[in-house]
Amino acid sequence: MTERDPQARVGKLVVVGVGLIGGSFALALRSRNAVREVVGIGRSRANLDAALKRSIVDRAATLDEPWQRELEGADVVLVATPVAQMPGLLASIAPRLEKDTVITDAGSTKRDVAAAARGTLGAVLPRFVPGHPIAGAEQSGSAAATATLFRDRQTVLTPLPETGAAAVTRVGALWETCGARVSRMDAEQHDRILGAVSHLPHVLAYAFVGALARRSDGGALFALAGSGFRDFTRIAGSSPEMWRDIMLANRDVLLDELAQYRDMLSRYAEALQQENAALLLELLTQAAQARRALKSLAEEPGTDDA
Amino acid sequence: MTERDPQARVGKLVVVGVGLIGGSFALALRSRNAVREVVGIGRSRANLDAALKRSIVDRAATLDEPWQRELEGADVVLVATPVAQMPGLLASIAPRLEKDTVITDAGSTKRDVAAAARGTLGAVLPRFVPGHPIAGAEQSGSAAATATLFRDRQTVLTPLPETGAAAVTRVGALWETCGARVSRMDAEQHDRILGAVSHLPHVLAYAFVGALARRSDGGALFALAGSGFRDFTRIAGSSPEMWRDIMLANRDVLLDELAQYRDMLSRYAEALQQENAALLLELLTQAAQARRALKSLAEEPGTDDA
Repeated sequence: MTERDPQARVGKLVVVGVGLIGGSFALALRSRNAVREVVGIGRSRANLDAALKRSIVDRAATLDEPWQRELEGADVVLVATPVAQMPGLLASIAPRLEKDTVITDAGSTKRDVAAAARGTLGAVLPRFVPGHPIAGAEQSGSAAATATLFRDRQTVLTPLPETGAAAVTRVGALWETCGARVSRMDAEQHDRILGAVSHLPHVLAYAFVGALARRSDGGALFALAGSGFRDFTRIAGSSPEMWRDIMLANRDVLLDELAQYRDMLSRYAEALQQENAALLLELLTQAAQARRALKSLAEEPGTDDA
Repeated sequence: MTERDPQARVGKLVVVGVGLIGGSFALALRSRNAVREVVGIGRSRANLDAALKRSIVDRAATLDEPWQRELEGADVVLVATPVAQMPGLLASIAPRLEKDTVITDAGSTKRDVAAAARGTLGAVLPRFVPGHPIAGAEQSGSAAATATLFRDRQTVLTPLPETGAAAVTRVGALWETCGARVSRMDAEQHDRILGAVSHLPHVLAYAFVGALARRSDGGALFALAGSGFRDFTRIAGSSPEMWRDIMLANRDVLLDELAQYRDMLSRYAEALQQENAALLLELLTQAAQARRALKSLAEEPGTDDA
């Protein structure tokens, strides 16, 4: 290997929540020889054993064990658990963190993570870098982790005003080592954008499949579903628990987005009611042009973002 | 080749509209040695020349030429043009059709095709078999045609009460030769089902992309769109003209479906407004279970159904 930016290397990495995201982060750094030692912390022994077997982690401890002792000597701690567990975990991590350790997270919403950090981290706050790798898949757990999950994907960092510049640089360099494109914005902007491009379409897809599923002729309907249907509804197969938490964490933004979307649906309904072919064509054309413009962006295989 | 069901072979096939669907039908039959001669009829000389060059058709004529003479000796005529052109084409085909020729179509809506057939075909009506191969792609034209487009896809036939049984059997056998699974239902049932599983999601996806595109922060939004976004919106890149026609042809069904969908969105909005985590989880879980059950069906690569 050539000389590497020391910011982009880690001695000891502690991953709390060795699922798809946490496991892939460890594997990606490993594949670039950018980490010396990985310790995995999690709820389920079976998932940790699977992570050990795949050499995603070198050692593992469950949350029932005295796992906090593994924070000793850690260079970086990544909390990649469901967002709802974050306040409790941050509270138990903070007092044990050494003075140079940087801590980051991978939660899908960022205002709630910022609030949890402010409520729990105290003096550690300047070394906490909230982050959101925009990548995922319908599969979950360490078994689904891959070294390439973040390649050419976006990772958004949402530093707090208190966050130190060195910590942001450090975490950004690690995500770049994983192959991600790193951008920064504040938590409000992150939640507003993700509300529009991720949380709203999840509501729309879940609502669509749910409405069909409860009909008496649902079986006949699904039998004629083509590949367009399958792509449109794929995100509705994502984890209900995870999405309940995301939707509630971002509910003010999501309600705004839903209201705007329902206005647009009203325009379509009116165009149909009035048999206004010109208006309908205008609406469809605006959308198709915008969608086709996106094709210049890389089209990745079907995975599920959160 | 082994002895083949004579129903599944064609001597002379005339394809009116040598686009993705018409071209793929010809190629699929050719790949099984199930057709002797293919004549292509179309609006655009360039598209027909491309079809000739790819040996999709043996001869070609544009609609400006005296193409009706090619109906002489035809065993099967497939009309695979946009549905709006169907009445005029059927009217000019009917008087020139020989007494044993079977005629079929590939339109995405079937009540309007049935009405067009009743208004134009007269004595030929018993030999007209309305059909809808549920397959497609974002690409169009003969250049996009492939011999495998219909493999393991559904083709729905919607015979009229007047349609003869032999004609239905003949057309069904040809689609099976193309690799399709053939089912039969009436035009009303077809339009109701497709309204729910295809036309409604197209409205929803177009409305979603259109609403984002007209926002001043649209660029920032699209920049953070992940692969879930891309799959959810892929169908919004489909042809606006084609979808305007489909939506208008099936507008009564579509308005009913939209109303039901908007009711379901209201339930989500209420659950969010009330921070009702239990109701939200229930809604999400019902949908996710239904979507996951679909995975037992074949997952095909991303193509666009109409």
